Amino acid sequence: MAFRPLHDRVLVRRVEEVAKTKGGIIIPDTAKEKPQEGEIVAVGNGVIGDDGNRVALEVKTGDRVLFAKWGGTEVTVDGEELIIMKESDIMGIVE
Amino acid sequence: MAFRPLHDRVLVRRVEEVAKTKGGIIIPDTAKEKPQEGEIVAVGNGVIGDDGNRVALEVKTGDRVLFAKWGGTEVTVDGEELIIMKESDIMGIVE
Amino acid sequence: MAFRPLHDRVLVRRVEEVAKTKGGIIIPDTAKEKPQEGEIVAVGNGVIGDDGNRVALEVKTGDRVLFAKWGGTEVTVDGEELIIMKESDIMGIVE
Amino acid sequence: MAFRPLHDRVLVRRVEEVAKTKGGIIIPDTAKEKPQEGEIVAVGNGVIGDDGNRVALEVKTGDRVLFAKWGGTEVTVDGEELIIMKESDIMGIVE
Amino acid sequence: MAFRPLHDRVLVRRVEEVAKTKGGIIIPDTAKEKPQEGEIVAVGNGVIGDDGNRVALEVKTGDRVLFAKWGGTEVTVDGEELIIMKESDIMGIVE
Amino acid sequence: MAFRPLHDRVLVRRVEEVAKTKGGIIIPDTAKEKPQEGEIVAVGNGVIGDDGNRVALEVKTGDRVLFAKWGGTEVTVDGEELIIMKESDIMGIVE
Amino acid sequence: MAFRPLHDRVLVRRVEEVAKTKGGIIIPDTAKEKPQEGEIVAVGNGVIGDDGNRVALEVKTGDRVLFAKWGGTEVTVDGEELIIMKESDIMGIVE
Repeated sequence: MAFRPLHDRVLVRRVEEVAKTKGGIIIPDTAKEKPQEGEIVAVGNGVIGDDGNRVALEVKTGDRVLFAKWGGTEVTVDGEELIIMKESDIMGIVE
Repeated sequence: MAFRPLHDRVLVRRVEEVAKTKGGIIIPDTAKEKPQEGEIVAVGNGVIGDDGNRVALEVKTGDRVLFAKWGGTEVTVDGEELIIMKESDIMGIVE
Repeated sequence: MAFRPLHDRVLVRRVEEVAKTKGGIIIPDTAKEKPQEGEIVAVGNGVIGDDGNRVALEVKTGDRVLFAKWGGTEVTVDGEELIIMKESDIMGIVE
Repeated sequence: MAFRPLHDRVLVRRVEEVAKTKGGIIIPDTAKEKPQEGEIVAVGNGVIGDDGNRVALEVKTGDRVLFAKWGGTEVTVDGEELIIMKESDIMGIVE
Repeated sequence: MAFRPLHDRVLVRRVEEVAKTKGGIIIPDTAKEKPQEGEIVAVGNGVIGDDGNRVALEVKTGDRVLFAKWGGTEVTVDGEELIIMKESDIMGIVE
Repeated sequence: MAFRPLHDRVLVRRVEEVAKTKGGIIIPDTAKEKPQEGEIVAVGNGVIGDDGNRVALEVKTGDRVLFAKWGGTEVTVDGEELIIMKESDIMGIVE
Repeated sequence: MAFRPLHDRVLVRRVEEVAKTKGGIIIPDTAKEKPQEGEIVAVGNGVIGDDGNRVALEVKTGDRVLFAKWGGTEVTVDGEELIIMKESDIMGIVE
């Protein structure tokens, strides 16, 4: 069983920040808009632009991302807790 | 007797979540914006884009979808309770 | 004497829901945004799209429709009570 | 002396509703957004659309129209009380 | 010394309404949005439309206009009190 | 050292109104939205229009302008107090 | 490890203002919207314009910029505190 997000939505698996002592992305608790780290599980087909062409999403399945904490809707797919959000809630890709 | 939604609206039959113990989509009660599961009964013809072409909907009759709880208007068609909503209220397709 | 709605407006005759016991569209009193049933009496010519072409309305005279209760302005044409509303206030067509 | 409305504005002469007992347009006092009847005295040249072409107005001088009561600005031209309003404040044409 | 308004702005000289007893434009004190009479002193070059072409203003220097009372910013150019406003604050041209 | 404004922003040097007694632009204290006089020090490259072309600004370095008092952000470049603002905050050019 | 901002976002390293006594950009404490100085560490690929083409950002890695204080989200990448913000939060480039 799978879930395919619609339009510009993506499905994200939240990743716990385990490596706080070594180099990596750390989000300070004092941040005004605290982002969270996650992994892209599925992406929508994108939205139709003003020129009638579909604009594909910039993130792809497997991408490690930072996303806004308040973004998205929590769902449980096959026993796993995931989050449906819009791509605009994603700030960037950890490479 | 049938009901054909206009433009970017769809007609949805709510599906009760019966299989909470086996694999599948489960929506936790603690979710901020609790989505619901449903089945597409009828779809509109889409809206006219800025280039003058009609943009067809991405969902089709028979699709199993998750939609925002607060979306839509309840109607009873031939004794069956259905919901008219916009496609933008639908988060994705369960495949 | 007749009334021709302008742009994306339509003229609608409200239809009393007489057949609540047999198959048909029934709108429950508990609906958040209670729609009403009606019949299209006249339609506007549509609005000019961004490409300079006029976009015709999707409903036509004689269509049986559901519309939002709060939509429109009541007028009396030749002794008959009708409602002027925008096509966007119409949810779909009963076929 | 004359007044030429700019862009999508029109100049309207309000018409008193004299024939309340015979067939015609009657606006009930209980209407939420009570429209008024009038006659188009002058029209603007229309606005420039996104494609760079001017979109002419749909009403023309002499048209009998219904318009929203709260629309427009009252002026007196050559001793006659008229109203300047946008075409979007006009609901339709009485034919 | 001169002042050239930018984009869709115009420079207007307010005209006192001297001829209240003969034919002409009179604005009643009871008007909800009381317009004022003026003369165009200078006009901007217009704004760039979505198609990349500059849209010239519809009013020109010397035009006698009605404008919304609350529109614009008062300046004194060469000892003369003038008003800078957007063309959209102008309701029409007195011819 | 220099500062290049981004997009549709400009860098403005405020000019004190020294010549209040002779002909020139005077802004009355009673003005609702009191503009100020300044000189353009640097301009951005403009924004990208809907057609994908960059729209250059209408003001250029050295132009004497009137701008809205509440517009912009004050900075000190090489010991000189300047203001960063959007071109839309500029009302016109004093020639 | 690196972080690639999405769309029109950039990654910025805040720069402390060390040279307050010599020529340079100084932001007065009394400024209404106090900007801050920083250096661009990484930039997104830009957004898709209405014509379907991607619009590249105007800033590039290494640019010294002024940005609005309230803009962006603080993150720690490889032990260094950085800020993710939109390019529109950047006022200009210090050259």
